[in-house]
Amino acid sequence: MLSKSQIRTITSLQHKKFRKEHGLFAVEGTKSVTEFIHSNYIVQHIFYTSQAAAKLDKIPQNIKSEEISEQDLKRISSLKTPQGVLALVRIPTIPPLTNDSLLNSFHLVLDDVQDPGNLGTIIRTAEWFGFKSIVCSLGSVDAYNPKVVQASMGSLARMQVQYMDLLALIINIPVPVFGAVLDGAPIYETDFGPEGLVILGNEGNGISTALLAHIQHPITIPRIGQAESLNVAVSAALFCAELARRQSV
Amino acid sequence: MLSKSQIRTITSLQHKKFRKEHGLFAVEGTKSVTEFIHSNYIVQHIFYTSQAAAKLDKIPQNIKSEEISEQDLKRISSLKTPQGVLALVRIPTIPPLTNDSLLNSFHLVLDDVQDPGNLGTIIRTAEWFGFKSIVCSLGSVDAYNPKVVQASMGSLARMQVQYMDLLALIINIPVPVFGAVLDGAPIYETDFGPEGLVILGNEGNGISTALLAHIQHPITIPRIGQAESLNVAVSAALFCAELARRQSV
Repeated sequence: MLSKSQIRTITSLQHKKFRKEHGLFAVEGTKSVTEFIHSNYIVQHIFYTSQAAAKLDKIPQNIKSEEISEQDLKRISSLKTPQGVLALVRIPTIPPLTNDSLLNSFHLVLDDVQDPGNLGTIIRTAEWFGFKSIVCSLGSVDAYNPKVVQASMGSLARMQVQYMDLLALIINIPVPVFGAVLDGAPIYETDFGPEGLVILGNEGNGISTALLAHIQHPITIPRIGQAESLNVAVSAALFCAELARRQSV
Repeated sequence: MLSKSQIRTITSLQHKKFRKEHGLFAVEGTKSVTEFIHSNYIVQHIFYTSQAAAKLDKIPQNIKSEEISEQDLKRISSLKTPQGVLALVRIPTIPPLTNDSLLNSFHLVLDDVQDPGNLGTIIRTAEWFGFKSIVCSLGSVDAYNPKVVQASMGSLARMQVQYMDLLALIINIPVPVFGAVLDGAPIYETDFGPEGLVILGNEGNGISTALLAHIQHPITIPRIGQAESLNVAVSAALFCAELARRQSV
């Protein structure tokens, strides 16, 4: 049985302040927890119900694990319908982007994306298309927010999400900077070359004015209907897919 | 001031049963309400706060409209942060798909998509790419669900969403049937021709087995990373974009 203090600590991880304080975040569900076990992340503690035990892979001996009641799981879960297992995972220290690491590859850069479902979906989609890291502005939603982890469907286990001052990043960068905007060059006629950053903006306001000035290649996904804009996770997917398609042909 | 009975009726529209009973659904927010006013939908009643009045276009005289207090808006809104205006809109009668209407165009077909955010995003994205109608299985989430209306960002005003028995639809259909699956032919190497249905499946289970048997062209979005699947709204976007790209080149 979990102590009150354990329950308090684990539920506090639903808030960024306490995730930072403890250096931990929670992952829920058999599939996601399994993917984190097999990743470079350090899984510190796994709580599971007897029902979920059968569906979990053998838990490596160096990870503390503990069977708990359905009731206790409900107490520590951030989900309306808990998924049988919750793991505490260390927030990794991600090596800072160097100019060398930017060469010969593309990086998604998110300028103040706020919706956790959007960031989670972007992580899941980017990973599908072979991206290894995403760069977020300091004002973006936290990648270890439980709703982001949930929406990423385990893909966060294979993705490095980095937070930094985007303006400092793109000034004097050795690769071209592309940006998703509503009045740029059509994506299908753009020569992306072998490397670059692709910046996507905030849900309501797009890319911030300060950053826009440094975008050499404003790019648009051609519109046929009258919708005012695309969802940012959809735009990100279309950029990832197009970059992947170009590299495969 | 709104009566208790008005409040009860309007909030009841958050449930499909009562939307069907009253033949009405609610649309919130200045932008969405404006798009419905200028659409083929019949807007029956608009409730707005004094603050929102300035942001609203002139309301046509044939639409009942009424200024209400912020407090009353809070009582009838489905949103945590109400957007100043709520309209009651008639659920339209959509003419059934005929074989003729299927020729020379593409239609998205959704097999039991459950998440309202996903359906709303699919409506928004499909409309961006020029699609005029979407076909849903009878078990799919209702297009007039407030979260669908919200996520469609006004695009529902220009989209016909139709519910029908998909098996009955695709048997003996005069156009090719494409389906989004995990082990089909690569989308970029597929000749879609000038017309067809593109079926996307349920979030957890994909396309139902009964339908799968009738899909002549199983299609896959090529994967580079290890993500197990793509979000259905992301898959739909990639299919819409690819079909739009083919027609423009």
